[in-house]
Amino acid sequence: MRTDPITQRKPAGKPEHLYLQLARNIEQQIRDEVLRVGDKLPSIRTVCREQGISMSTATQAYYELESRSLIESRPQSGYYVSRSPRRQLPVPQTSRPAEKEYQESQEDLIQNVYAELHRSNTIPLSLGVPADDLLPIAKLNKAMVQAMRKLPAGGTQYEEIQGNEKLRRQIAHWSFTWQGHLSDKDIVTTAGSMNALSYCLMAVTRRGDTIAVESPVYFGILQLARSLGLHVLELPTHPQTGIELDALKNALPTLTACVLVSNFNNPLGSCMPDEHKREVVRLLEHHNIPLIEDDLYGDVYFGQNRPKSCKTYDKAGLVLWCGSVSKTLAPGYRVGWTAPGRFTEQITRLKMLHSVSSTTLTQEVVANFLANGRYENHLRKLRRTLHTNSLQYSRAIADYFPEGTRISQPQGGFVLWVELAKTISTVELYKRAMRHGISLAPGRMFTLQNQFDNSMRLSYGLPWSHQIDQALKTVGMLAKNIYLGR
Amino acid sequence: MRTDPITQRKPAGKPEHLYLQLARNIEQQIRDEVLRVGDKLPSIRTVCREQGISMSTATQAYYELESRSLIESRPQSGYYVSRSPRRQLPVPQTSRPAEKEYQESQEDLIQNVYAELHRSNTIPLSLGVPADDLLPIAKLNKAMVQAMRKLPAGGTQYEEIQGNEKLRRQIAHWSFTWQGHLSDKDIVTTAGSMNALSYCLMAVTRRGDTIAVESPVYFGILQLARSLGLHVLELPTHPQTGIELDALKNALPTLTACVLVSNFNNPLGSCMPDEHKREVVRLLEHHNIPLIEDDLYGDVYFGQNRPKSCKTYDKAGLVLWCGSVSKTLAPGYRVGWTAPGRFTEQITRLKMLHSVSSTTLTQEVVANFLANGRYENHLRKLRRTLHTNSLQYSRAIADYFPEGTRISQPQGGFVLWVELAKTISTVELYKRAMRHGISLAPGRMFTLQNQFDNSMRLSYGLPWSHQIDQALKTVGMLAKNIYLGR
Repeated sequence: MRTDPITQRKPAGKPEHLYLQLARNIEQQIRDEVLRVGDKLPSIRTVCREQGISMSTATQAYYELESRSLIESRPQSGYYVSRSPRRQLPVPQTSRPAEKEYQESQEDLIQNVYAELHRSNTIPLSLGVPADDLLPIAKLNKAMVQAMRKLPAGGTQYEEIQGNEKLRRQIAHWSFTWQGHLSDKDIVTTAGSMNALSYCLMAVTRRGDTIAVESPVYFGILQLARSLGLHVLELPTHPQTGIELDALKNALPTLTACVLVSNFNNPLGSCMPDEHKREVVRLLEHHNIPLIEDDLYGDVYFGQNRPKSCKTYDKAGLVLWCGSVSKTLAPGYRVGWTAPGRFTEQITRLKMLHSVSSTTLTQEVVANFLANGRYENHLRKLRRTLHTNSLQYSRAIADYFPEGTRISQPQGGFVLWVELAKTISTVELYKRAMRHGISLAPGRMFTLQNQFDNSMRLSYGLPWSHQIDQALKTVGMLAKNIYLGR
Repeated sequence: MRTDPITQRKPAGKPEHLYLQLARNIEQQIRDEVLRVGDKLPSIRTVCREQGISMSTATQAYYELESRSLIESRPQSGYYVSRSPRRQLPVPQTSRPAEKEYQESQEDLIQNVYAELHRSNTIPLSLGVPADDLLPIAKLNKAMVQAMRKLPAGGTQYEEIQGNEKLRRQIAHWSFTWQGHLSDKDIVTTAGSMNALSYCLMAVTRRGDTIAVESPVYFGILQLARSLGLHVLELPTHPQTGIELDALKNALPTLTACVLVSNFNNPLGSCMPDEHKREVVRLLEHHNIPLIEDDLYGDVYFGQNRPKSCKTYDKAGLVLWCGSVSKTLAPGYRVGWTAPGRFTEQITRLKMLHSVSSTTLTQEVVANFLANGRYENHLRKLRRTLHTNSLQYSRAIADYFPEGTRISQPQGGFVLWVELAKTISTVELYKRAMRHGISLAPGRMFTLQNQFDNSMRLSYGLPWSHQIDQALKTVGMLAKNIYLGR
């Protein structure tokens, strides 16, 4: 006679609580992969009906599993399996860049990775943008037709230099979700977030100045800074909480500006806690040092609420907050922005000198998308999908990658930071993976120093599929081979 | 009995040739404003039929008038009245900027002129762009819908960094009209021509360097150069033939780069003759000095053929040729380009760092417009309209403006350069004209030196109308008042 999973008892002693039995049973299903990471659990109501138990018992069981991080609730959606008890990889340690300047260029590597990406049939795990399937393309096309009809001269006219007024108002309105309290006059639109960063750096630095960044850091920031003749100080950064405050504090006397990707940093995935953000703003304000905050991933959060920005705590107008829709809506529209505090006039002027104005039509489309709630609708779906992706990718990596692997646990954004055993070169891994049509981003791309040789960035912006699972299996296998000296 | 105009004879001597009689008769009609500047003459066939004369007589009469610049033939269109014998204003003299650096800023004036332009009901004679009526907006909208349907992901994807391949191929193809012989690989697309200039200046200069420009010169170039920390040397420039070669030659030892608007220069309207272009390229090549050539008006020519570019003569790859469709098709699309010779890789990299890529959709639309001949069709109409406008505006200025007025005779482009008597301040004239809802661009905007106080730029991009005629009459009247100390 089979044991009923719900009524089975411990071999000896007191009878186990009913809710614990249910929890243990679900845990076993997760362990056996009957329920897999990212799967939705039955609703509490369904569990009650199916198992003939009370609401409070079912709720307690789910709380128990949640407290052990095996499942998690998502607002207006239900409970999901968030990790497997089988194998849990540790997160990478805080980065420890050397205290000296860069020695060699990582340019060739970056160029190579991006050139080879265009080979047909390559699985682009190196690309930090969402797949087309995740974008609301039909709705955007419709909005474009409406914009052409509505704008004077079909949107062929020059836009106001500071940017589409409706778009600026919407971004200002949106800033209330992170207590930004901006107005349309505080915002200048740009051709994407990198374009905003470029104007901000030109406004607050001069050739020969030094800026502080996180480590690892998005290579575009490194290249831009170098091209402007700036020295870059890469500071220790924790995979969960971001830049280390003590390190930043010590560096302050040498700095002209600071560039931080505060929320769901690319590539590390770190998100600065509120108290860190407040403290960074306080420190920089005390030294009158501008902070360029690239917050382009802040809207792609997996938790209950959007994280705050450093800009939230900016009273002195020293935070130049930047963002875009390039990672969430339409990279090719080139719509980004900055709220540059006391530098607003200067940035508007730089924009005028270097590009006159933004593309009229695409700004109008994004403005309308924000205004009529379509953007928030889209983001809700995008967040759910990416959260599930992040768990599924992480599980596969835990399953397939060799001993010694560490992995970030991003609570938002698009990318995982994976650290392998010290002896595994990810540049070598990249080369071998490309022979299998898989592109990944070696850690060496994200620094100007000799570090992160055994790390890499993997994007989970591609929808989960058997093909992705097999690709990660292949990468894991190739990493094992390198580890074993094959 | 009335004298037949055709058969009337000279008081004495030999009977006048019939063709000369016809020519004199038409001249009288122009003098009497029966035929006005810009009007189309009857076709030769019509003249023969109406006057009962032979084709060769009519043709000879028209040749006679053409040789005296009273009329002009336009390909596939016929003959037009090109000037009135009544009053012909001289062209301004070659500019004579001082040999020292700038003394004071013209920024406030520029800002003021552009801020006040947005007042409702202002007639924007200060604006150097075509009126909406001159743009093929319905066709552009249609092309946009097609582009969204055809591009992968509706044009939301990142574009190739160097720019839309089809667009680059079309620009290369187009370059054969001025013997440019470019290939798609030579071209980098940008967000308009100023954006191209910005990357070119960043590529070839460093803070503290000196560049040479024409004088007067488009203020955007002055402001951009200053913002990049460059010294600007304004060189003597002739209203017809452009920068003076001797002046450039003398300045060469101090220069890092040169920026010229070679064809239908804004604001002067000058167009460098081929031999000047060739010589400038030779001189600069000899000193290894890059030439940034802004050729954004070259396609708006009034003659038979598109003028060549300095790039035509560039063998060393030192000419960074720039252009856009902002003045001819769609300012708000932000589509421009550069063919930067040996600096192509560097410019591509700067574009990547500062803005990642261009707007995908608008580039595709322009590429298709060029590919299917719609752009050339549109340009043919635009050129005719602007040519007629230029003549009509010039005639009105000759009629209404006070003694001592000089005026440029541009053979292309959008603007007239008007020089008034020495004592007439165009800043004062601007202020008075604005009270009548008329905006003009004082000469002081186009220099960093204390000059051009009695000059101004007037755009003829607005369709000719009674309102424009009256506006020019008002400006003339106000100028007279200032001249008379009223």
